[in-house]
Amino acid sequence: MASLEDIGVSAFINILTAFAFLLAFALLRLQPINDRVYFPKWYIIGSRTSPISGGGGGRRNIVGKFVNLNWKTYLTFLNWMPQALQMSESQLIQHAGLDSAVFLRIYLLGLKIFVPVTILALVVLVPVNVSEGTLFFLRKELVISDIDKLSISNVRPKSQKFWFHISMAYMFTIWICYMLYKEYDRVAFMRLHYLASQQRRVDQFTVVVRNVPRVAGHSISESVDHFFQTNHPNHYLCHQAVYNANKFAKLIRQRERLHNWLDYNQLKFERHPDKRPTTKTGFLGLCGSKVDSIDFYKQKMQELDTRIESERQRTLKDSKAIMPAAFVSFNSRWGAAVCAQTQQSKNPTLWLTDWAPEPRDLYWRNLAIPFVSISVRKLIISIAVFALVFFYMIPIAFVQSLANLDGLEKVAPYLRPVIEIKVIKSFLQGFLPGLALKIFMYILPTVLMIMSKVEGYLAVSVLERKTAAKYYYFMLVNVFLGSIVTGTAFEQLHSFLHQSPTQIPRTIGVSIPMKATFFITYIMVDGWAGIASEILRLKPLVIFHLKNMFIVKTDRDRERAMDPGSVDLPETLPTLQLYFLLGIVYAVVTPILLPFILVFFAFAYLVYRHQVINVYCQRYESVAAFWPFVHSRIVASLFISQLLLLGLLSTKKAANTTPLLVALPILTIWFHKYCKSRFEPAFRKYPLEEAIAKDIMENSSEPNLNLRAYLADAYLHPIFRSFEEVELVEVRVDKHQACVDTPPMSEVNSPSPPHYPPYYGYNYDYDEH
Amino acid sequence: MASLEDIGVSAFINILTAFAFLLAFALLRLQPINDRVYFPKWYIIGSRTSPISGGGGGRRNIVGKFVNLNWKTYLTFLNWMPQALQMSESQLIQHAGLDSAVFLRIYLLGLKIFVPVTILALVVLVPVNVSEGTLFFLRKELVISDIDKLSISNVRPKSQKFWFHISMAYMFTIWICYMLYKEYDRVAFMRLHYLASQQRRVDQFTVVVRNVPRVAGHSISESVDHFFQTNHPNHYLCHQAVYNANKFAKLIRQRERLHNWLDYNQLKFERHPDKRPTTKTGFLGLCGSKVDSIDFYKQKMQELDTRIESERQRTLKDSKAIMPAAFVSFNSRWGAAVCAQTQQSKNPTLWLTDWAPEPRDLYWRNLAIPFVSISVRKLIISIAVFALVFFYMIPIAFVQSLANLDGLEKVAPYLRPVIEIKVIKSFLQGFLPGLALKIFMYILPTVLMIMSKVEGYLAVSVLERKTAAKYYYFMLVNVFLGSIVTGTAFEQLHSFLHQSPTQIPRTIGVSIPMKATFFITYIMVDGWAGIASEILRLKPLVIFHLKNMFIVKTDRDRERAMDPGSVDLPETLPTLQLYFLLGIVYAVVTPILLPFILVFFAFAYLVYRHQVINVYCQRYESVAAFWPFVHSRIVASLFISQLLLLGLLSTKKAANTTPLLVALPILTIWFHKYCKSRFEPAFRKYPLEEAIAKDIMENSSEPNLNLRAYLADAYLHPIFRSFEEVELVEVRVDKHQACVDTPPMSEVNSPSPPHYPPYYGYNYDYDEH
Repeated sequence: MASLEDIGVSAFINILTAFAFLLAFALLRLQPINDRVYFPKWYIIGSRTSPISGGGGGRRNIVGKFVNLNWKTYLTFLNWMPQALQMSESQLIQHAGLDSAVFLRIYLLGLKIFVPVTILALVVLVPVNVSEGTLFFLRKELVISDIDKLSISNVRPKSQKFWFHISMAYMFTIWICYMLYKEYDRVAFMRLHYLASQQRRVDQFTVVVRNVPRVAGHSISESVDHFFQTNHPNHYLCHQAVYNANKFAKLIRQRERLHNWLDYNQLKFERHPDKRPTTKTGFLGLCGSKVDSIDFYKQKMQELDTRIESERQRTLKDSKAIMPAAFVSFNSRWGAAVCAQTQQSKNPTLWLTDWAPEPRDLYWRNLAIPFVSISVRKLIISIAVFALVFFYMIPIAFVQSLANLDGLEKVAPYLRPVIEIKVIKSFLQGFLPGLALKIFMYILPTVLMIMSKVEGYLAVSVLERKTAAKYYYFMLVNVFLGSIVTGTAFEQLHSFLHQSPTQIPRTIGVSIPMKATFFITYIMVDGWAGIASEILRLKPLVIFHLKNMFIVKTDRDRERAMDPGSVDLPETLPTLQLYFLLGIVYAVVTPILLPFILVFFAFAYLVYRHQVINVYCQRYESVAAFWPFVHSRIVASLFISQLLLLGLLSTKKAANTTPLLVALPILTIWFHKYCKSRFEPAFRKYPLEEAIAKDIMENSSEPNLNLRAYLADAYLHPIFRSFEEVELVEVRVDKHQACVDTPPMSEVNSPSPPHYPPYYGYNYDYDEH
Repeated sequence: MASLEDIGVSAFINILTAFAFLLAFALLRLQPINDRVYFPKWYIIGSRTSPISGGGGGRRNIVGKFVNLNWKTYLTFLNWMPQALQMSESQLIQHAGLDSAVFLRIYLLGLKIFVPVTILALVVLVPVNVSEGTLFFLRKELVISDIDKLSISNVRPKSQKFWFHISMAYMFTIWICYMLYKEYDRVAFMRLHYLASQQRRVDQFTVVVRNVPRVAGHSISESVDHFFQTNHPNHYLCHQAVYNANKFAKLIRQRERLHNWLDYNQLKFERHPDKRPTTKTGFLGLCGSKVDSIDFYKQKMQELDTRIESERQRTLKDSKAIMPAAFVSFNSRWGAAVCAQTQQSKNPTLWLTDWAPEPRDLYWRNLAIPFVSISVRKLIISIAVFALVFFYMIPIAFVQSLANLDGLEKVAPYLRPVIEIKVIKSFLQGFLPGLALKIFMYILPTVLMIMSKVEGYLAVSVLERKTAAKYYYFMLVNVFLGSIVTGTAFEQLHSFLHQSPTQIPRTIGVSIPMKATFFITYIMVDGWAGIASEILRLKPLVIFHLKNMFIVKTDRDRERAMDPGSVDLPETLPTLQLYFLLGIVYAVVTPILLPFILVFFAFAYLVYRHQVINVYCQRYESVAAFWPFVHSRIVASLFISQLLLLGLLSTKKAANTTPLLVALPILTIWFHKYCKSRFEPAFRKYPLEEAIAKDIMENSSEPNLNLRAYLADAYLHPIFRSFEEVELVEVRVDKHQACVDTPPMSEVNSPSPPHYPPYYGYNYDYDEH
């Protein structure tokens, strides 16, 4: 167990690391050449087209284009922090969307919850714990850390001082619930306000319908038209079919790859006009006959273009390529709200309607999964997630047993002389077993995302939320419980199955105070240094410069080479929730942990505010749809903390206090249920009151709006409009042939469909799984 | 433990009891005087007005009016059984409603499930168990019952024969799931078909809205009108306010009581015209001055009538008597379906809309409970139910300790000489402690019903379902688990909390085979004899004859004296589910129990079919809304049986088979989830496809229908129309004054509101709790 000095050293190291990252960031972001890495958001929204030089000076020379020579700007290297705070929340919502603004509110919520809790805990509980001083007497026999003197471990069993801890547990619970309630209320209000003040958007009028039954002799389009004309006679407007464009998307990706190679070779030729680049036609360009690269790729692309064209025609014409799903549009928000919230068909597995996600947010591939399949998939994935959470160590241990030095020597005997060198050997022996685990942890989010995709959710936002949920379970079991109770998750599961339900919180509860130092270190490494590395954006920086060097020719290429990224919800949400859990659990037990959490929340808030303002470009806008999950996980943390405190106190023989504590989890569950029914509908359903108010407002302001034209190809697969606008028109015509009864539209009045940036935004990974 | 002979004796006694009941029933039901007790249904639907004499003979004398003298009819005393089976299911639905028909299907489902299971289990498992013969060797030391030789206890640990049991567990699970799926499918179809083929009903067009916000300066009626005219502009028709008629209802009940006394005295006078009956005006008629009874009650009633009139006027006029709830009617089923399924307001706790139950089904009292209060009530009631289930023995033990002989002697010393007589003493000692328990069990359903009422459900049908759920938990814990594991439920809870989760099914599983004989006896006493006593209707018989003797004057009075009752869902559903549980649990363990269950299902089916056809008059029609609960409880039984089998086999050291069995509960849960999403929407929501189809059909058949007039006072509190039709018209006029914007209706085209029998049907217990 670490003493206070050890913690101090660790804190010093981590603060140093964090500062190093911040310093590097401060230096790098001022270089004009990195401007597109650290400020891509401004390029995307179009307010910046070329790097602004750091200071007020307008001097520009060839060096100044790449390196910032204005020394004054280096002096204020931390000024991004106040800058990040300048933007008001309403500006932020306009600038980056509600999702990002609400995401930042989670950190603020952490501060709001933990600042009073920390003060109270430090002022009341630490003196109580210290004054008791059981551990001073024990010191000679046991190695007791200084941290423990400040924790509940220092209070002797049966002490009357536990009343302080119990009353604090009540006060903290009430405070946390109050803050959570206020915040939920606020976020729900912000969501409704945002929806109400939004521009007209296609998804407000559109409903996605799945599991359209195939009727012999009728096309899917005809069925959809007939069904909605019958059942929503005064509200149905038109619909768009969904094409199975798997193969087409594959070709498009091939074309993109070829295009990159062509660019690369043309650039090479431009730089060295004396020598035309050549390539080999065989496998991976390693064998075969030598040909001129530019001609070769140009020809290949032409071939591909004809194939793409024919495939596109086939996809649009072939009735089998139309999937049993459609986007159904209504002539009012009211009509769409009604259709999304009601049951359409006698058979509840057919004609499933739901709000259409906005086009950017759609995960097209999952539109065609039938009902039975979804239910089987969910079963399989939940078993798989359970197995992954509890048994992930088994395959890793297996790989580790293979990847030891003996195994390596057998596979590659020629490496033996190298391996036998002592330094290398000891390095490898320390390194190899960890490698499998590192790789696993690195690919885990991807694996979880694939699992969510298999489950069949329609929107990227939902996929991310579901992935976040899975990741949270993993962290809860393997990071939180796994650190507290020794042994692998599987061993824990085994021992929990053989313990009584009242014994489990006791086992965990007893270990909690002992692990405080570990978690303090964890918070500093993962939280402080991790967040500082987030702002540095090392990976996008390297990739941008590589792309810039090899394939960027035009400004448009440069724009494409930018990778603004977005708030990585599947990873950040579970991490955040883990910190909430740690803070709430340790608030009563070892209050000295709280300041570390506070620093994390404050620092992360600054960093993410900067990133949201300057870097991230959200791929979609889910209008804070993730909030119910954030809320319920914090409530779950509260519940867990109460159970563990109950277990801990029961071992402290504060038995007469136990009944008092039992009331807490019951009240917490009730609070959760109440909030769920009070606020959750605002995140799941669109109230008719709102819908009709917006309809009426629009009708009076734009009485001649041609909604049909506005909605015409909003939900066309993005693949079909990836390149030229010419093609788009063509597709539009095709679509109208497919949609039988749509009258010819008057283009006069039609507002143009919403414009999204060409590359970011769309979810291309159509057949990637 | 009982031997096979003991079981035989018990069976003989119970069969004898059942036959005695049946014989008594056969004799009593043939007497014309009892006709209204055993065939009230026919009087209510109006197809019978006076008793038909048993045989073909039309001879009637004064004796023949009361006693059946046709000896031939006595010979065929069991012919009600084939008679009960004659009616086809579609006739039954027409005759008694879908609820009753589907209720009978539960018994049929029991037969369908258990006939093949019984045959298979007896043919395969019994020989396997017998052939093993472990227990023969043990016989000398232990007392082993013959039943145990046929059960799984007879198979020695680690035997390969457990494969038979495991494969049977799989086959039974698959068969049960298959039957459940088919049945759910069928019932869902029947429900939709019934809804589609139904006559026009007011609840198809009506939605109940709760938590109407009070706006200063506007009445509730104005708010409702404004809100729905804005948000459902093309569909809203009109609404009916809900009056707080608590006090009024109380007066009405007083009047009814007085009326009974008046009738009683008038009848007395008629029979003895020489002596006018007198009564005393004081407390309970025991003291005070003597007055003429008929005059006294007539005068009292007149006084009350004026008070009732003024109270009625006050209720209708006073704006404070209007509750923040309303029945909102739409001009089409589509409009009502949309409103019931969507969210209306930004604040999800206001303007809560839901399908209106049919007027007969409404529990008026709960209409005014606000949202927060409901959520608090639910918390309190769930804690109360938990306490009731696990700690109900504590108050009973307390009462028992008071109600022993010593206590009695102290309270009433003058009883001492009587108590000291030995026979009486031993009788009392055996009787008194059980008395408290008996009384508790008798009032338990009422207590649970009150709890459900406190929870705030709107419809009587829902109240009954929720009561059934609570009763089921009570039976599961106290009858099923309580019989298997010794000790009170509280002791069980305590020991379960201190056992590991894997140990619990083992503890219970081991005891299961040993309790088979107990449950066989239980089935015979509670099932066989209990059902036979159901058909005898002893309580209604006695009450009817008492009423007939003292207060019945006119035919209408006689009609009122009939108490047809209805299927008592809160008690029969949990009982049924307990039998399903027993059958499924013992199918693999002790198959010899199954024939007893089969007899129960077959016999109960016959009895209830007879009762449904001839006796019961349902108070409401919920269109089989209870089926999802029946289904899910049978699935839960399956799940419990699998866990217990797992526990049992793990003690038998058939350890290598355990993993195979783990798959079963997982698949069962999945099956449950699948069925829930596949079928449950049909029971919760009204598909728009159905709604609009019915709208269109009606429009073409009755284009001039005046819907507004049809709906005008459908949801008037039944209290307001309890007596004379004259009053009804008056109220109707009042209502129109209250509902500001309703245009004067043309009565020309108005179809009359649906006619329900005057007394049964309505739920009068307005302020009874």
